[in-house]
Parts: sequence; structure tokens; C-alpha cells
Amino acid sequence: MAPIRLGVVGLSAEGSWASRSHLPHLLQSDDYAITALQNSSAEAASRAVAKYQLPGKVACYGSISELVDDANVDMVVVSVKVPHHYELLKAALAAPTKKDVFVEWPLAANLREAEELTGLAAARGVRTMVGLQARQNPSIRRARELVASGALGDILGTTMLGNGLVFGPQVTSDLLYMLPIEHGANLLTIPAGHAIDALCYVLGEFKHLHATLANNRPELSLVDSDGNHVRSVAKSAHDYVAVEGTLLRGGVASVVYQGGSSLTGKDFYWEINGSKASLILEADSGHVQMFHPTLKLATPPSSSHSVYGSGPGPKVEEVLVDKAANLSYNVGLAWDAFVDKGPGSVTTFEDALVRHRMIDAIYKSNETGTRQSYL
Amino acid sequence: MAPIRLGVVGLSAEGSWASRSHLPHLLQSDDYAITALQNSSAEAASRAVAKYQLPGKVACYGSISELVDDANVDMVVVSVKVPHHYELLKAALAAPTKKDVFVEWPLAANLREAEELTGLAAARGVRTMVGLQARQNPSIRRARELVASGALGDILGTTMLGNGLVFGPQVTSDLLYMLPIEHGANLLTIPAGHAIDALCYVLGEFKHLHATLANNRPELSLVDSDGNHVRSVAKSAHDYVAVEGTLLRGGVASVVYQGGSSLTGKDFYWEINGSKASLILEADSGHVQMFHPTLKLATPPSSSHSVYGSGPGPKVEEVLVDKAANLSYNVGLAWDAFVDKGPGSVTTFEDALVRHRMIDAIYKSNETGTRQSYL
Repeated sequence: MAPIRLGVVGLSAEGSWASRSHLPHLLQSDDYAITALQNSSAEAASRAVAKYQLPGKVACYGSISELVDDANVDMVVVSVKVPHHYELLKAALAAPTKKDVFVEWPLAANLREAEELTGLAAARGVRTMVGLQARQNPSIRRARELVASGALGDILGTTMLGNGLVFGPQVTSDLLYMLPIEHGANLLTIPAGHAIDALCYVLGEFKHLHATLANNRPELSLVDSDGNHVRSVAKSAHDYVAVEGTLLRGGVASVVYQGGSSLTGKDFYWEINGSKASLILEADSGHVQMFHPTLKLATPPSSSHSVYGSGPGPKVEEVLVDKAANLSYNVGLAWDAFVDKGPGSVTTFEDALVRHRMIDAIYKSNETGTRQSYL
Repeated sequence: MAPIRLGVVGLSAEGSWASRSHLPHLLQSDDYAITALQNSSAEAASRAVAKYQLPGKVACYGSISELVDDANVDMVVVSVKVPHHYELLKAALAAPTKKDVFVEWPLAANLREAEELTGLAAARGVRTMVGLQARQNPSIRRARELVASGALGDILGTTMLGNGLVFGPQVTSDLLYMLPIEHGANLLTIPAGHAIDALCYVLGEFKHLHATLANNRPELSLVDSDGNHVRSVAKSAHDYVAVEGTLLRGGVASVVYQGGSSLTGKDFYWEINGSKASLILEADSGHVQMFHPTLKLATPPSSSHSVYGSGPGPKVEEVLVDKAANLSYNVGLAWDAFVDKGPGSVTTFEDALVRHRMIDAIYKSNETGTRQSYL
């Protein structure tokens, strides 16, 4: 089959998420060919072509309208900051010839945009994919299998603790765009959003939830690359996220995501407790869409353990799963799945819309003090 | 000063919480003398006197009315199952001669009873004490001091995970009384109640909270002392407690208490995260009113750590505090505090009433799906 021709928005010669994650996979795949780039200017796009030694003929554009007019593009790949997703996707979905679309998570800056874009994609009949790549993580896929197999018995509850790295006391200039809540790129939507997406991928959606959010640090210190304070900057996005609720398939879920780095060694800690066994997923980073947690299965050694903890303790054994060589591992599994290869799965706009609705429910619950449903 | 003469309800020759916790302290204290016991019968009380070789003359009673009529009793100590607290305290508070009262936590089976008893005690002008003895735990007292000193900076949030031992898949006959929710002696009120009381002792009360409760195991297996199944018994009390909210002094608190024993090593895990440092309290049991957590202080090694986790990790050091020799340690600190000795504190009916109001708010939030306040 001829490779799918990709027009990529956001592959920068200065380095970017796209260059570290998508590019290594796409370059070694026979299923995809990058045929066009759009950057801030055609020259910038050319620099990226040169820098990454992209094979074949690559058209270089400085505007989305040129890219979407290119008949040699089958699929538009949007890998830029969230606030730009809407306009780029809207253009791609209005292209003269139908183009499939990929976009990083979050799909859009808010629910309204996400709904509109999902509707446009459905109306146009194009295929969609969203970078909720925690779903491709080997330990998370294995956890999903174990839960589905009944190995844990009935799910009683699950607790997830994470730190988002962003929204500690300091911020660097490249991340200033995350500070205004209306940009939709923050602790809740990105690190917590990816992690809660993984939770729901493994355990199913919430029946209802409530949330407590806080903006403990309404001012951050903007620092230079040496860590020196430049000036104070205002932040309206939340830096503490607590979500709790009942899962549709049973059990109670509690999620706490904090800004900055953990001092307690809990940058990512997730336990899933069932009537027969528990799972423990741990990682050094709360960005579970990028970093791979270890997976452990904890089982009671004998039935006598359950009588008030008497007898020997539980048995905790690591479940061995593939480890990623680099950031393109999870992303690559999704690209493979898009052409029906490998063990990964495709996450569509519709899937992402469910997650946007959940995030909206979290905001609403925090504002109103009431339990919310989102399905 | 003459010792305070105690009339104790619930000291059994067959062993009891009172015999393991109150008795060892009271026997070695010059401040207290046990002058009367009330058990199921005068004979049962006599057996306890003989079994524990109580010094001096101890009157033995089979009814609370006899005990409260005894002019040689200055203070009535109620250490029996929660469903009996109300009638016993009501009798003690109506005694012909004024008597101070001690009662184990929970003060009563529900908020209505607790309010009535607190009102009666205040009207009678007696001193009260409630066994919320986690407040006496050395690591918890030290955590409170560290928070108050500003060592942690501003409190950003706190997360507490615990297992209650009770309400795993099995139950023994001595704990059957905990199963009906109307008895008010369950996972929420006892292990979680003590632990949340410790949280509020250290960090202050909740501004508002919401809660998700579940009764994942509406039937338990009643087992004999060898762990053999006898029959299934119905349980109406919850076995999963998730509470989340904003603290009055700032920060977000999340608490998860589960039934049974943990398979994940999180029988008690509590972190308190401040803008300058964090505290970690850990124990092998979620009954933090009985077992002493270790206390660790986690600090960032340098300011550079906070820029996206670069540089060396945080420094985690144990804070050394006294360790208890036995179950009478925490209880003893409260008895000492009642006579203005030692570093402990007295927890009054009024203090306990705040905790009862919180528990009522937790139930209401779970039932209505709304955020609740209780102060």
C-alpha cells in the first residue's frame, strides 16, 4: 500500500515534541511519508527539512491554508501549542480534498471548540486521531487487560497521585502560554488529563465525579535558563487538582494531581484495588503519557490474611512489560494502530471529546460544589 | 491532691480495649484511682477486679444507675461499644452528684445523640474527655508543631490513604455490631474518623468537603477463630470512604479509607505538602489512634530542583519522636493532660462534636452529591 502522505504542522528545527516523538517513528515507518511541513514561515519549514534530513520531496509552507490546499497531503498532523489547535484543525477539516487529521491532546482549548471540531470531522467523514498516548503505554495496556480478565476481581476503588512538573513555583518562558486558564493547556488538562484518561482506559468512565481545584500559586517566578528570577508572572490556571467519584463499572476513584515536582517520591503513584488483587503503577514522572510506570501485581498469600491482617503479608510481584526506548514509543504504537498494525489503539476525536466533557464536568463541579456526570 | 476517683464501665476480665489501654496507665498513675466498676453484672465486675488485681476497695455494679449513685466516683469512664454510649452517658450526666465523664470515640452513634450529650454536659458543668487519642500520637503532635512553625511554608495540599482493617471480606463475631450503619461504629466513624481527626488537628478544619462512600461488600463472611466460614452476614455500613475538600487555612485535602488490609503497603500513608517542605507519615496500620506512624520531613535540596525537577532530588529525613511502648501510651497522655501534666491535650465533647458534624456532612454530601460545610 502507498504510504499515507502527512502534512505536519509544528516540526521545528529548534526541536519540539514532534521532532522527539513523532519524527523518529515516522522516519522508520513504511506506512507514512512526510510530504509537507507548515511552520511559522516557509523558511522555518525548510530549516526543519534540512535539520532532520527528511527524505523525498517535502513542500514547505508558512500558512495552514497552503498546507490544506496541497493535494499531496492525505493527513494533517497538528503538533503545536493547544491554543492554536482550533484554527489549524478547522482549516484542515475544510480542506478542498478530504484529509484525515491528527492532533495532540488536548484536542482543543475548551469543550465548545472540541465539540465543534468533532462535529466537523464527523460531517466531513475523515478519520481522526488524538495524542492521548498514555493509552499506548505497555504497563497501562497490561493493566487494562488484567482488569478486563477479572484477575483483580471486582474493582473496589482506585487512587492515583501525581505531580505535573509544570506549575511549581517557577516557570520558563516556553511554558508561559500555559498560565492563562482560557488557553486550556494546564495541569488539569495535560498531565492530569492524560493520567485520568489512562485511568478511564483501564477502569472505564466515571458515573459521576466531584472536584476541588486550587490555584495555590497565582504568581509564578519566571526564570531564565540558569534558573535566575526574571519577573513575576500571573497564573489563572489551577495548580492543584483533586477529583473523586464513582466508576460506572463499580468502585470509587480518587485522583490528586499537584503542580511542580514531588518531594515525597509520589510523582506518579496509582493503585487499583480489587476484591482479589491489586495493581500498583509507579513512575518518576506524573507525565504518564511520556514515561512508563512499573507495574506490580499484589495478591494476598492466603485467605487467612484477610482476617484483620493476620498471617504473612501480601505478595507483590512486578509484571514485566516492554519498556520504551524513547518518547516515540507510545506515539509510534498509535501510528501503527492507525494502519491496523501492532498492539496499540487509535484514540479518536470522539474519544477525546469524552475526556473534554469530563474536564468540563470537573470545572463545573469545582465552581458549583455539585456532583457532575459527563456521559 | 487526692486522686480522681474513677467509675469504669467496660473493663472486662475477658480482656477489652480498656484493659489494654486505660488500665496500664491508670494503675501506675497517682492522679487516678479506680473506685468502681460496672459490667454486665456485679459478678462480672468482681471477676475484673480479681483478674487485674485492682488496688483498694472497688465497688462492683451490674447497672449504670448503681454506678452513678456512688458518691465515691468523681468521673465516669465509658469504654464500651458505641451503640451503648448514649444511654450510659445520659445516666452519668444525670448523676445525683456531678461527675466528669470520659467516653471513647465516637462520642455517640449519630450527630443527634452527640449534640444532646454535649448539651447535657455543658448544662451540668462537668468536664468531658473523648478518646480521640490520635491527637496524642508523638508524630502527629510533632507534625502539628512543624506546620504551625511555618517549616512547611503555605500548605498546598494533603493526601491521606488508609485501610481500616475492619470491613474486609470477613468479619469475626465480636465485630458484628459494626455492620449496621445505624450503630455508628464503622470504617468511616472509627479508623477514618480518628485519622481525619488527626488531619484536622494538624492542619485545621475543612472549609467545605465532598464525599463518595461505597458499600462494596454488602455481605461479609462471618468466620470463626480459625477463619472458617460460618455464614454470610449483611452489612449496611460503608467500606470505602473518599473525602475531599478545601481546608480553612488553605490547601486541598484528600482522604481515602478502604476496608480490610492493604495489598499495596498503604495501610497508612499521609503526606502534607507545603510551599517549602513536605511531611510524610507512614504506619503499618490505618488505626492511627493506636499505632504510631514514622514521620519524615522532605525538603528540596536547592532552588534549582523546582525548575522541572532538574538537579538532585529532595532530601527526606526521619524526624525522631518518642515511640509508644504499648496501647496505653496515647491514652495515658490524655489522662495526664486532664490533670495538667505532660505534653498531651484534652479532647472535649465540644471537640468531638465538630468531628461528628463533619461525619454528618460526609454522609450528607454522599447522599445529595453536594459540597458541605460543618462549622
